[in-house]
Amino acid sequence: MADFIFNNPVKLHVGPGKFGQLGNVAQQYGKKALLVVSDSTKPTGQLARAQEALTAAGMTWAVYDEFMQNPLSTLVEAGASLARQENCDLVIGIGGGSAMDMAKGIAFCALNEGSIWDYVFGKKQAQHALPIILVPTTAGTGSEANRTAVFTNPETHDKKGLVNPLIYPVASIVDPELMLTLPKRVIAGPGADVLFHALESYISRNAHPFSEMLSLRAITLLAKNLPRVYADVTDLAAWEQVTFASTLAGMAIDCAGTTLPHALQHPMGGLLDVVHAEGIAAVYPAFMEYTWSAAPEKFAAIAAAMGVDTRDMNTEEAAYSSVKAVTDFLKSVNMLPSLTELGVKEEHFDWIINNVQTTMKVVMENNPRVPDAQTLRDILQRSL
Amino acid sequence: MADFIFNNPVKLHVGPGKFGQLGNVAQQYGKKALLVVSDSTKPTGQLARAQEALTAAGMTWAVYDEFMQNPLSTLVEAGASLARQENCDLVIGIGGGSAMDMAKGIAFCALNEGSIWDYVFGKKQAQHALPIILVPTTAGTGSEANRTAVFTNPETHDKKGLVNPLIYPVASIVDPELMLTLPKRVIAGPGADVLFHALESYISRNAHPFSEMLSLRAITLLAKNLPRVYADVTDLAAWEQVTFASTLAGMAIDCAGTTLPHALQHPMGGLLDVVHAEGIAAVYPAFMEYTWSAAPEKFAAIAAAMGVDTRDMNTEEAAYSSVKAVTDFLKSVNMLPSLTELGVKEEHFDWIINNVQTTMKVVMENNPRVPDAQTLRDILQRSL
Repeated sequence: MADFIFNNPVKLHVGPGKFGQLGNVAQQYGKKALLVVSDSTKPTGQLARAQEALTAAGMTWAVYDEFMQNPLSTLVEAGASLARQENCDLVIGIGGGSAMDMAKGIAFCALNEGSIWDYVFGKKQAQHALPIILVPTTAGTGSEANRTAVFTNPETHDKKGLVNPLIYPVASIVDPELMLTLPKRVIAGPGADVLFHALESYISRNAHPFSEMLSLRAITLLAKNLPRVYADVTDLAAWEQVTFASTLAGMAIDCAGTTLPHALQHPMGGLLDVVHAEGIAAVYPAFMEYTWSAAPEKFAAIAAAMGVDTRDMNTEEAAYSSVKAVTDFLKSVNMLPSLTELGVKEEHFDWIINNVQTTMKVVMENNPRVPDAQTLRDILQRSL
Repeated sequence: MADFIFNNPVKLHVGPGKFGQLGNVAQQYGKKALLVVSDSTKPTGQLARAQEALTAAGMTWAVYDEFMQNPLSTLVEAGASLARQENCDLVIGIGGGSAMDMAKGIAFCALNEGSIWDYVFGKKQAQHALPIILVPTTAGTGSEANRTAVFTNPETHDKKGLVNPLIYPVASIVDPELMLTLPKRVIAGPGADVLFHALESYISRNAHPFSEMLSLRAITLLAKNLPRVYADVTDLAAWEQVTFASTLAGMAIDCAGTTLPHALQHPMGGLLDVVHAEGIAAVYPAFMEYTWSAAPEKFAAIAAAMGVDTRDMNTEEAAYSSVKAVTDFLKSVNMLPSLTELGVKEEHFDWIINNVQTTMKVVMENNPRVPDAQTLRDILQRSL
């Protein structure tokens, strides 16, 4: 066992109907909230419910909803200005990963002057951020359970995470009832992302006994239950497991990080605005083929958690069976695009490979086997 | 899924050699520490190492070591006086469960006037406690990972826990190297207690998906590795798993509590100073026989986690097999005393039953099946 530190201070409020407690929860942390929300919170009535809940709890609020699927650092800074101007003492993010990461960035920038990139790249140190409450409306990033928020720099196209204990949410509300009207595409993509987080954190060189427990549990719950909610979006019992898996995986990446697929996706997201889970899914079969033999016991455990009956296999057979299990799983939820379909072409490879080896070097080196530039090119080529 | 709240703010420093970082960890939280230590920390050199580490980190310290296996509330209050008199701004507990609980109680009472029982029984509310750092030197209570500290009132013989978020340790150091010289009796008793915590939190009516994950993982790790360290106290790899299991189980009881065996042990500890794990072990077979059929799926999972091959059994068979698996396990580490051997006699039953039904009512009602007075008497009778 490597020695490790585990600390996750987020207060998780989990279960059907918990969104109804937003007012009670929020009033413990502030008087005026900036609501940072996805567009989807309007037609679903989630934004209106939040506003009513805060008002009923004696709080006031302002709304910020200007961002996109790969949140731009410039819009974070605009949101932070609004938070200061409105004298907000709390930021509440309601939505998918982008809204939650945006909320984290705004809470951070509201109390820290200058460019967020100075903090991302460790040039400046911060002491404070506004308290953050997160409410996921998709089961995907697990951002509600960790201290990471990923942004894109529109000037350099760098996409990179701010990782800072100051942006742990003080509380998160994980309510599976918020998932019951999601369109299929917003089930499959974020759902696959849960698998990616769980699998990569499990095999990461930074994994430790606590994170491994979280990762494997997330894989087991997700593999069983994502197909159920994909088939029937109203299956609340299955959503309970999927949302919980998402939160567990979000805790796991907080310990152990992600690996090669996330390293490859970030430049694609930054350069071409590729949807997070789709960019990752496209490289997954090639990544697994390349990686499994470097950590056979872990991939064998992944196969078992995916539901493969590995009892009559040796470790190598079981490990290799995980490649097919994950590939089949992604196919079953229509989440196995090619890079070509996502607009990634050979002409982008040089930029992507260079960016992976600079901006995403640390993440790439979490992988049990670390590719050189030529191998990265092969993986991308095989994923076209 | 019942809805639930999960929050555990303890910063866990886990791994061989981590005790060497005590000074670096402690200086983040205070300038003068009260060291609350078990007697065993003297011959093992642990107290001296702690004193040197704090001095090297530029801190000062005082020592408090006056307590017993079932810590008395009067001695907590004496320790709190010492902390105030010495102007300590941090309490460090090093030892088994008693030392750690004593440290928690002292950190609490140092900033809260009056009797600790007023807080235990909810008559007074507290706002502050000194920061607490815990270092377990046995793998047992898991107190390093939760907000509970159990004390005995020498006037009433009540033994009851203070449960308060203010006594979460700010940090704990879980170093398996500290276990390498433990005598067999101090391996088996605390080790069995890990199993008791994990099993009871797993079946508790307050269990939830997060605590269930912690509990089952603890059972699996403990069942495999406690026999190894019992056979060879120098087996560091096995100690890593046993100490981690203890911490996981400590987190699990923080979520879900314990059940009937702990409810029965507390009056025995309070009245007759029975050793915690021994009192519990004595009633375990009768408790399991009485309880298993009320939660067959959970007991079946316990059997599997204990290492029983349940694949060809139906749920009831698997569940019932857990009774024998646990009983055999306790026998294998010489931890299956009778109540008679522990000095508990039929003449004590009335007092014990009355105390269980008053002081320990909440804990008893966590059990999947709740016994009346006659059934409690039967369980005690069968355990003589």
